[in-house]
Amino acid sequence: MRDSLDQRVAEAADLVTVALDALLPRADGPEQRLTEAMRYAALGPGRRMRPFFMLETARMFGVEERSVLRAACALECVHAYSQVHDDLPCLDDDDLRRGRPTLHRAYDEATAILAGDGLQAVAFEIMAHPDTHSDGTIRAELVRRLAVACGAKGMVGGQMIAVVGVGDDLGAIARMQRMKTGALIACAFDLALVLGRAPESERQALVAFAQDLGLAYQIVDDFTDAAGEEDLLGKAAAERNGAGRKVNFVTLLGVDAARERVDLLAAQAKAHLDMFGDDARYLRNSVDFVLDRRQ
Amino acid sequence: MRDSLDQRVAEAADLVTVALDALLPRADGPEQRLTEAMRYAALGPGRRMRPFFMLETARMFGVEERSVLRAACALECVHAYSQVHDDLPCLDDDDLRRGRPTLHRAYDEATAILAGDGLQAVAFEIMAHPDTHSDGTIRAELVRRLAVACGAKGMVGGQMIAVVGVGDDLGAIARMQRMKTGALIACAFDLALVLGRAPESERQALVAFAQDLGLAYQIVDDFTDAAGEEDLLGKAAAERNGAGRKVNFVTLLGVDAARERVDLLAAQAKAHLDMFGDDARYLRNSVDFVLDRRQ
Repeated sequence: MRDSLDQRVAEAADLVTVALDALLPRADGPEQRLTEAMRYAALGPGRRMRPFFMLETARMFGVEERSVLRAACALECVHAYSQVHDDLPCLDDDDLRRGRPTLHRAYDEATAILAGDGLQAVAFEIMAHPDTHSDGTIRAELVRRLAVACGAKGMVGGQMIAVVGVGDDLGAIARMQRMKTGALIACAFDLALVLGRAPESERQALVAFAQDLGLAYQIVDDFTDAAGEEDLLGKAAAERNGAGRKVNFVTLLGVDAARERVDLLAAQAKAHLDMFGDDARYLRNSVDFVLDRRQ
Repeated sequence: MRDSLDQRVAEAADLVTVALDALLPRADGPEQRLTEAMRYAALGPGRRMRPFFMLETARMFGVEERSVLRAACALECVHAYSQVHDDLPCLDDDDLRRGRPTLHRAYDEATAILAGDGLQAVAFEIMAHPDTHSDGTIRAELVRRLAVACGAKGMVGGQMIAVVGVGDDLGAIARMQRMKTGALIACAFDLALVLGRAPESERQALVAFAQDLGLAYQIVDDFTDAAGEEDLLGKAAAERNGAGRKVNFVTLLGVDAARERVDLLAAQAKAHLDMFGDDARYLRNSVDFVLDRRQ
């Protein structure tokens, strides 16, 4: 089962990478620097867990593959842009991401800012295009949900909180993570569920799954961060409090309580999938896949 | 006529500023810094010519005011975000815009990057919302056209070209300006025309009007830039060539030929409006309004 899950995750990554390559703009004028930088950021190495979640969820609701692939590409463009901007010197000031120079190191800061902006724009261009779905109301709803997830009440708001600092309040840290990384993970499911016109009860179950998995992942990520390793979905994400100390779930809860919390959240996440039976087997196994290797 | 045009432009500015104030997010958590910065950028002083163009065009085609106002707010959010990012130290490095500190001066660079990102997201959120239009296909088409106009083949591509530098080639400078500022001006008309379900011939005439006006405006802007004055639509925009010299229409064509070019473009812009007769009187007069004061 684990092998076939690995394979399934890899297949999703391949599908979305090929689709992204076709959808990202190319240019041969002086703006080529921009389109190449956008490609560097969006087509670089990555596990592409969000597209995997989207494809699995879409399959459960009989969504056409072309629709969910385009929606996944849009989401990946937003994810890529957020990494590019987050890596900038005035934010996280990171030189490396997944073993490659970050975009502002490979190019320069101006190009990184503009490439991030261009990736956000192309995300909405891809989503709103008639090829994504024949029903305009669905396309507009996908756009709206992605915009909300990555906006001031979601991802960008969470990034702002990380800059401002969260202090030692575990609740505030959890809220920040729910916005900063959780919103886009939940959005992956949400978009697939809109495409699948899923009933409300099933929608709620999968969004709850996403939230528990996202938080559990964040705690595991804090262990990674403590060990200085590279993470699975993005990059290490411990936050500093006002005093410049690293604060995260592991430093605040302690190692044992943090591990317990991960186990609890993982069990809870899987329980949300009970109603889907065998249809959700790959999603169910992905919990351990996402959380396991570094515990 | 001039007075009533002034009044009409001011009315459009008021309408869109009030609507933007209602549509931009507020927050009382630590992400408040972000929503306040977004408001600082989007609600600051400005002539709001793009909303004026949109409202006038929409009136010609009987578009509901609520629809065009929301579309105008979305466009203004994109315009505001582009200014915020363009002002950053690694791009134009501007300290002032319309007499106020630029966003990264009033806040800091990290906040400016995130506020720009949040403004782009909220633009698409506003546009895709059911309140913008009852027809989802129209909403999705508005999103798509705005995304194309501000993306790699439009505004952001033009910003990239400005960073790379254009040399002394007048054609290349014109292309850059068409992308960097022209795309969003043309988009203002385009969005109103989508809402008005305008026939193709009328659409073409108004987009041609926008292009001629945009280019004429750019040349006038180059005069402004030479004189160090502040401009009408945004900020001074002379570009530097590879050698760091300022190159623009005025430096390359010479003052007399540049003035002639403006007159020609203005006449041509007005001629595109002939088919609309008296319905287009405010748009027709806005040509001189936009170009006049600084010639």
